[in-house]
Amino acid sequence: MDGAASAPVAIIAGSGALPLEVANSATRAGRQVFMALLSGSADPAHYAGFEYAEFGLGQLGALLKSLRQRGIVEASLIGGVVRPGLADIKPDFGLVRHWAELAQAFRKGDDGLLSGIIAILENQGIKVVSALAIAPDLAVTVAGPVTTRHPTREALEEIALGLKLMAALSPFDVGQCVVVSDGRPVAIEGAEGTDAMLQRVADMRRTGRLKRESGGGVLVKAPKIGQNMRIDIPAIGPQTVRNAADAGLQGIAIAREQVLLADRAATIALADRLGLFIEATP
Amino acid sequence: MDGAASAPVAIIAGSGALPLEVANSATRAGRQVFMALLSGSADPAHYAGFEYAEFGLGQLGALLKSLRQRGIVEASLIGGVVRPGLADIKPDFGLVRHWAELAQAFRKGDDGLLSGIIAILENQGIKVVSALAIAPDLAVTVAGPVTTRHPTREALEEIALGLKLMAALSPFDVGQCVVVSDGRPVAIEGAEGTDAMLQRVADMRRTGRLKRESGGGVLVKAPKIGQNMRIDIPAIGPQTVRNAADAGLQGIAIAREQVLLADRAATIALADRLGLFIEATP
Repeated sequence: MDGAASAPVAIIAGSGALPLEVANSATRAGRQVFMALLSGSADPAHYAGFEYAEFGLGQLGALLKSLRQRGIVEASLIGGVVRPGLADIKPDFGLVRHWAELAQAFRKGDDGLLSGIIAILENQGIKVVSALAIAPDLAVTVAGPVTTRHPTREALEEIALGLKLMAALSPFDVGQCVVVSDGRPVAIEGAEGTDAMLQRVADMRRTGRLKRESGGGVLVKAPKIGQNMRIDIPAIGPQTVRNAADAGLQGIAIAREQVLLADRAATIALADRLGLFIEATP
Repeated sequence: MDGAASAPVAIIAGSGALPLEVANSATRAGRQVFMALLSGSADPAHYAGFEYAEFGLGQLGALLKSLRQRGIVEASLIGGVVRPGLADIKPDFGLVRHWAELAQAFRKGDDGLLSGIIAILENQGIKVVSALAIAPDLAVTVAGPVTTRHPTREALEEIALGLKLMAALSPFDVGQCVVVSDGRPVAIEGAEGTDAMLQRVADMRRTGRLKRESGGGVLVKAPKIGQNMRIDIPAIGPQTVRNAADAGLQGIAIAREQVLLADRAATIALADRLGLFIEATP
């Protein structure tokens, strides 16, 4: 174990199970982990096995102080945070100094807001890295299917179309996935998120608005070209597989090394049971 | 009235109120109108004032014969048709000869399917034109607001962003509108249609997934670059205004001369009453 691998790292944790998975993976990789839990988003009960503290979204000052006290110079952001209203952020003394900067970033959307927070952290000497950098065993590293089922040639064409469409959307601060079915895009993710988007596809199947001519279609999930992976890592898990099955899809394509496969064993087992493929794109 | 303006024209009508508006507008423009109603989509009761006949989606042969008998060489397609399953189309003798052609077009999505049908009609000597070509008084011809309320500078920026995003989506057979709010795209239309997309934005406001920081955002509706207006004309009407208001939007931007403003007087009056703008983009 070298110095970097054993250095302590802070995981700034939002909601969901991902922060714990990242914490466990980082621990497996030999890192000492400090959990900085976002109040109201991360549940402290889940992190009993780790050293942790809670911080409000505006308590950047307290967070920085806490990291310094522990000699931590590296951090990663992971988990869900509902984008707050600017009025919902109660700035502490440390954040007030950066308020104008943050308010400006806020107008630029999710990425702008989080980029602003990261810039403030980095200005204070904290290196912010992607969660996959501290938990590399959470991504799929080899192109191809990880499931029993493999994509058909038609599905591979739909995957290619979905990747092209997402490349076209890359300049915009908007969703990271698309559903392609019968050779055409039928749903593009906006602020609603992947689960709601898949629910929409399932509803369109049920009402007959969307007919199923052929294989059933694919969900394509990938980061934007140039996406800041320190801010936002695309992820899939058992719920994604379940929703994709409800939407009548043939499978899920994820970008190799760039999409977090949460709860890996359970996710793959569920896909196998429901007859879906999960394919890592080259 | 010149010869072209008084020549008879067939309106191939799907569901909704638009075919009747187009028929009335074409009549105002001096055209003799024959309504070719798509069975199950267009309600014959609405067209009592016009000469009409009903045709199934597969009865292209019977339709062509009917047009020839009337000496009609020009037609326009308007109104909603749920994209059928290929198995739902029962081909008549006239269509069977074009079946392979149509099946191939079908795989290319809505535009492909309708392009295929138009190609068949045109091969048989029927010129297919945009509904706005026979009913020009249904579009807005002057750039700027048609409502009492005008867009703010922020809304104008959001409109510009929405138009840019739709230009990026132009190469794909996908929706014609987008909602931009607080400077970022929050919903992109797929196969669900404009009403369902606006409903989604309203839901996201209600659940707090989407906060409202500033003016409320805009709905931007425009054809794709190079869109075949003979196939699909973007349209807004009172329901669009109501849904946009429910979604908390500041207004609606439509492309000048390229978006059909249905039920014009009622639509503008409702927008005025609800405090929304309708702006025709240059």
